Amino acid sequence: MKYGLSLALLLAIQSLTAQTDAEMLDRIHKTALTQGHCYQWLDDLSNKVGARLSGSEGAAKGVKYTQEQLNQLGLDKVYLQEVMVPKWERGEKEVAYLNLGKKRLDLSICALGMSVATPKNGLEAQVIEVKSLDELKALGADKVKGKIIFFNRPMDPEQIETFRAYGGCVDQRSSGAREAGKLGAVGVIVRSMNLRLDDLPHTGMTNYGDTPENQRIPAAAVSTLDANALSDALKTNPNATLFFRQTCVNKGEVLSYNVIGEITGTEFPNQIMVVGGHLDSWDLGDGSHDDGAGCVQSMEVLELFKKIGYKPKHTIRAVLFMNEENGVKGGLQYEAEVQRKGEQHVFALESDAGGFAPRGFSFEIDDANFGQVGLWKPLFEPYLIHLFRKGHSGVDIGPLKSPKIVKAGLQPDSQRYFDHHHAANDTFDAVNKRELELGAAAMTSLIYLFDKYGIL
Amino acid sequence: MKYGLSLALLLAIQSLTAQTDAEMLDRIHKTALTQGHCYQWLDDLSNKVGARLSGSEGAAKGVKYTQEQLNQLGLDKVYLQEVMVPKWERGEKEVAYLNLGKKRLDLSICALGMSVATPKNGLEAQVIEVKSLDELKALGADKVKGKIIFFNRPMDPEQIETFRAYGGCVDQRSSGAREAGKLGAVGVIVRSMNLRLDDLPHTGMTNYGDTPENQRIPAAAVSTLDANALSDALKTNPNATLFFRQTCVNKGEVLSYNVIGEITGTEFPNQIMVVGGHLDSWDLGDGSHDDGAGCVQSMEVLELFKKIGYKPKHTIRAVLFMNEENGVKGGLQYEAEVQRKGEQHVFALESDAGGFAPRGFSFEIDDANFGQVGLWKPLFEPYLIHLFRKGHSGVDIGPLKSPKIVKAGLQPDSQRYFDHHHAANDTFDAVNKRELELGAAAMTSLIYLFDKYGIL
Repeated sequence: MKYGLSLALLLAIQSLTAQTDAEMLDRIHKTALTQGHCYQWLDDLSNKVGARLSGSEGAAKGVKYTQEQLNQLGLDKVYLQEVMVPKWERGEKEVAYLNLGKKRLDLSICALGMSVATPKNGLEAQVIEVKSLDELKALGADKVKGKIIFFNRPMDPEQIETFRAYGGCVDQRSSGAREAGKLGAVGVIVRSMNLRLDDLPHTGMTNYGDTPENQRIPAAAVSTLDANALSDALKTNPNATLFFRQTCVNKGEVLSYNVIGEITGTEFPNQIMVVGGHLDSWDLGDGSHDDGAGCVQSMEVLELFKKIGYKPKHTIRAVLFMNEENGVKGGLQYEAEVQRKGEQHVFALESDAGGFAPRGFSFEIDDANFGQVGLWKPLFEPYLIHLFRKGHSGVDIGPLKSPKIVKAGLQPDSQRYFDHHHAANDTFDAVNKRELELGAAAMTSLIYLFDKYGIL
Repeated sequence: MKYGLSLALLLAIQSLTAQTDAEMLDRIHKTALTQGHCYQWLDDLSNKVGARLSGSEGAAKGVKYTQEQLNQLGLDKVYLQEVMVPKWERGEKEVAYLNLGKKRLDLSICALGMSVATPKNGLEAQVIEVKSLDELKALGADKVKGKIIFFNRPMDPEQIETFRAYGGCVDQRSSGAREAGKLGAVGVIVRSMNLRLDDLPHTGMTNYGDTPENQRIPAAAVSTLDANALSDALKTNPNATLFFRQTCVNKGEVLSYNVIGEITGTEFPNQIMVVGGHLDSWDLGDGSHDDGAGCVQSMEVLELFKKIGYKPKHTIRAVLFMNEENGVKGGLQYEAEVQRKGEQHVFALESDAGGFAPRGFSFEIDDANFGQVGLWKPLFEPYLIHLFRKGHSGVDIGPLKSPKIVKAGLQPDSQRYFDHHHAANDTFDAVNKRELELGAAAMTSLIYLFDKYGIL
């Protein structure tokens, strides 16, 4: 009953100020589309800084660049937060082919992130194609021992939302090498997580779990076109051997940083609302969509509040997390610091699904607050934002554990995302200026509303 | 009262079959995403046929190719409909520069569609920059006579929906030459209708109205970056002269065709539901988004009905209209034939806003039918389609005049559309396979529902 009444009361109060809110969202959007800097920042981050794999020179440059830019926004605080991150390097360009005796079928591959190298001169073995971890396990150690396992289950094209298709087959990439290694395989080749047929291999982390270093087997991704070609060739040449060579190396942990900027709240300075993305990227492209976009949009939230002169009641903090891709050390360290300092986080919003046109948000949220969000839906309709639903928020804000915290993730249009994800074509030219800006405006609008009306 | 009751009755009936409808939309979408041919057709139309300006060899090839493809779908009828269309040719690559004495500011221009040529050796005159037709008229003949008018009002970046920004400044392109000519100007340069800053000029039709041939002045579009550069240069060099040369020519009318394929209705064969796009394009790119996409999506509607074995009650007719870009002769001829044959058209759907991810539909519709559409909204939500509103449907179906006809236009995401519209980068690589297929599936779903429940 109390819940019902408080929602009714909220509705009454909020309808009184709906006009103001609509005007504020209008200002936020117009300012983003005409005075925002997120596209210029992304251009710099992509084309001047470049790829930002954790522990790399690019990542260090990314830290420096974003800190410098935040320093120019007139914020109340800009600082770095130390975090130890893995330093994994790809090494030389990978080589792979199916050895068909008189001829070779060359394969476009890339080492999976955190993979071990092959022996210096490469490795060659017979190949077994499987579609799933279950199929691998059913084969058993006798059949797997000494072989290269080729995981070839495609992303499901029937899924309307591409993240579901990704979720439905990424276990091959994340766990394939670990599970195949347990059964005595000598290497793993994984079909790229890509709905499109093309020549680009898509990297991404493979997770060996607690497998001892000397028992880890090398793992690579193969392009979707070459996965099909390999599968076809194996049908007529089931005993052909596959050669691959990669020289990637894990160099242990090095010091890096989360980059943080904030506007101190006027009424509740100790209640923090976080907006973030991750500053690290994979090394093949320049990480424009994943997740340069989320970083510059988070910076844009602060810039927009400054530009329109909105003084938030709560402290609004942009966090550019390091190391989402291969360890989430930045997210874990951030929460460790929250705990150490006894900070109170009430809201967190992450943008890590590409810089495409915003469609809405997914929330980790209780029913009362979700009811409040429902009241705001009409405010977003002029911006063609319709999705407000419960679901995953973001990997970097995942570790946040403050009581009653509401978490949200920006949901951009997802159809093109996996064409670029973790591949060499995740580059600046694939990002549209207005789509990026509209995402930043949607994020700013949501934070404005949570800041104004508070968390229930 | 009757209206209220019939809607309530409809709701009751339709809720009984909602499960079936949801399953049908699911089948339509899954089939489009896994078995559709629209992307392959567009690849052929863009990369084998190429640009399809009315009256050109490309347009003739486009007619032949699409007729051949329709012939392979097992339809009840495939035929061509004769239509006379203008044959305008661009001629040699256009040249333009601002003459600054010792140096030149080169300008990237293209002749506007249907423009006359400059004199053979080009023309050179002082330039007056204006932001609107009103500003031009306020100058008056004294100041305009002998000058080149530079229309430089940009598309409004504050508009969320880019078609509104286009609508807000396209009068400069469509009417600029006619109005400037009346005041004695010798030529017109128009800022490209493009929200992005780049080097590409965007063509599009200019309309001289009833201005006699020998009084028409040449008109060209200039890229957005060069429009800015020209404007800047004129501030410090107000008396500088602009040179431009174009050799475009209007060769009169030639025979062309609308391409038509249809499935005869099982219950109401004489009640026709049209789905269409336009087969002609501008000549600078290959017309992938404008409007190859709409053509192959319309063909896909028929293919999907065949593939899933749905036998429509009404006759479903795909029409690939010729000459939308510079005359709408195909749309006008189609309606003339409808009148001549006494055909009854009950529904028409056009896709001519690009092959981007579908967001919904805009309708020219009465309240009763719009109420019915409202009942279907939940069926589209799993496909992230939320926009159902009244508004413009399509240029080619504009002439259709059957009593009580409902017209609709597919509304894809519009943010990237004007980056490519009428420019050299309207090419196949700018179209995403899944986005194109999802648009075709949305169109098929809407037609399925109108076919099943009928027009009220």
